[in-house]
Amino acid sequence: MTILLYDLVGHDQTRPYSPHCWKTAMSLAHKGLDFETVPTTFLDVPAVEGGVSKTIPVIRDGNAVVADSFQIALYLDQAYPERPTLFGGEGGEAMARFIERWSQMTLHPYLGAAALMDIYRRQNEANRAYFRESREARFGKKLEDVAAVRESGLAAFRASLEPLRNMLTYQPFIGGDAPLYPDYIVFGALQWVRVTSPFQYLAADDPVSGWFERCLDLHDGIGRTVDAAA
Amino acid sequence: MTILLYDLVGHDQTRPYSPHCWKTAMSLAHKGLDFETVPTTFLDVPAVEGGVSKTIPVIRDGNAVVADSFQIALYLDQAYPERPTLFGGEGGEAMARFIERWSQMTLHPYLGAAALMDIYRRQNEANRAYFRESREARFGKKLEDVAAVRESGLAAFRASLEPLRNMLTYQPFIGGDAPLYPDYIVFGALQWVRVTSPFQYLAADDPVSGWFERCLDLHDGIGRTVDAAA
Repeated sequence: MTILLYDLVGHDQTRPYSPHCWKTAMSLAHKGLDFETVPTTFLDVPAVEGGVSKTIPVIRDGNAVVADSFQIALYLDQAYPERPTLFGGEGGEAMARFIERWSQMTLHPYLGAAALMDIYRRQNEANRAYFRESREARFGKKLEDVAAVRESGLAAFRASLEPLRNMLTYQPFIGGDAPLYPDYIVFGALQWVRVTSPFQYLAADDPVSGWFERCLDLHDGIGRTVDAAA
Repeated sequence: MTILLYDLVGHDQTRPYSPHCWKTAMSLAHKGLDFETVPTTFLDVPAVEGGVSKTIPVIRDGNAVVADSFQIALYLDQAYPERPTLFGGEGGEAMARFIERWSQMTLHPYLGAAALMDIYRRQNEANRAYFRESREARFGKKLEDVAAVRESGLAAFRASLEPLRNMLTYQPFIGGDAPLYPDYIVFGALQWVRVTSPFQYLAADDPVSGWFERCLDLHDGIGRTVDAAA
């Protein structure tokens, strides 16, 4: 049975953009599993699968409903052990959590702030109101003021990628010779801004750009099915 | 046959302090392997095992001589597969490289600068001259000026531990329920300054301090065989 992925979209249902939903789309593609996406806006989330989660991704796989991108990846490796592994063993499952927290604590605050107005403009009217209210409460300031970090924080953001950049002198993927789930974790963060924001977050000659392009090529180029924001 | 570990010391041969040698000591203890240390100063390194490496740790295990703490950990898992794993599979081997680069790029620059004068004072006269010359060339300034970062960089250093700190809300070790090699990677960095420098790098109520204390308790408290610097 085809797996359903509840996938976050704005007013254009063909442009999923959530970093966490992209982690799951890449995970499903990595496992070679057929899936269909259910385009879902912020305001649709509370109704997903009877309100199972405050956030998406959520997947339905037959009778199984699983929320949270990390939990979904663990579920997929457990449910489909005969397909390519996402973690490469128990050590990988544990260490992936560190890398997930690194991405969330180091990359997401800057990227989420820098692309904030781009994400806002991609919502329909009802979702814009929700997004402004919820994000201004979270940040404690106007959306427009949060996004000012895009220029002022760029150098620090690029510097914060140094562990990944330096790792790439040892191996082509976080997973080693081939990608594993942590590659999709960091990919999700960069794909989020690639498809919402025309700003150039990575320098073209940054080795991290080379890695990101390799990730975009994976699994029949699933990451390129949404064009870069113009 | 007992494994030999060439272990960096200053004038006090009972106080090994190298972060990388501590990674290896913890790795050997994790595997339950008997080992003896060969106290080695900076100026002794070129003669270790006929000049096999510019740095230590180096281990001799029967006829095998292995340099570099990460390579030693890989070697130990390959040579002693029946003993507790350091990586928990191929995924862990790959992801540990990211965490190693994170520790090296994020924690080491501050810690190595902040503890520089403490490390200097722990050398004998000949090694002091070597240390001052080589480090002043590396940093492009006087040792005393490098170490000024200890206060000015403390807040940023503590903030840089946030991925680890946040991960600890999910699991007690980077390896999950129990430690794996990446725990020893980060442990090595903090043990380096614990045994050389009386400065308080971690706040007492930081969850990272709790994790570090758990690491000090591991393997019959091998990390506590050297007292904290006073």
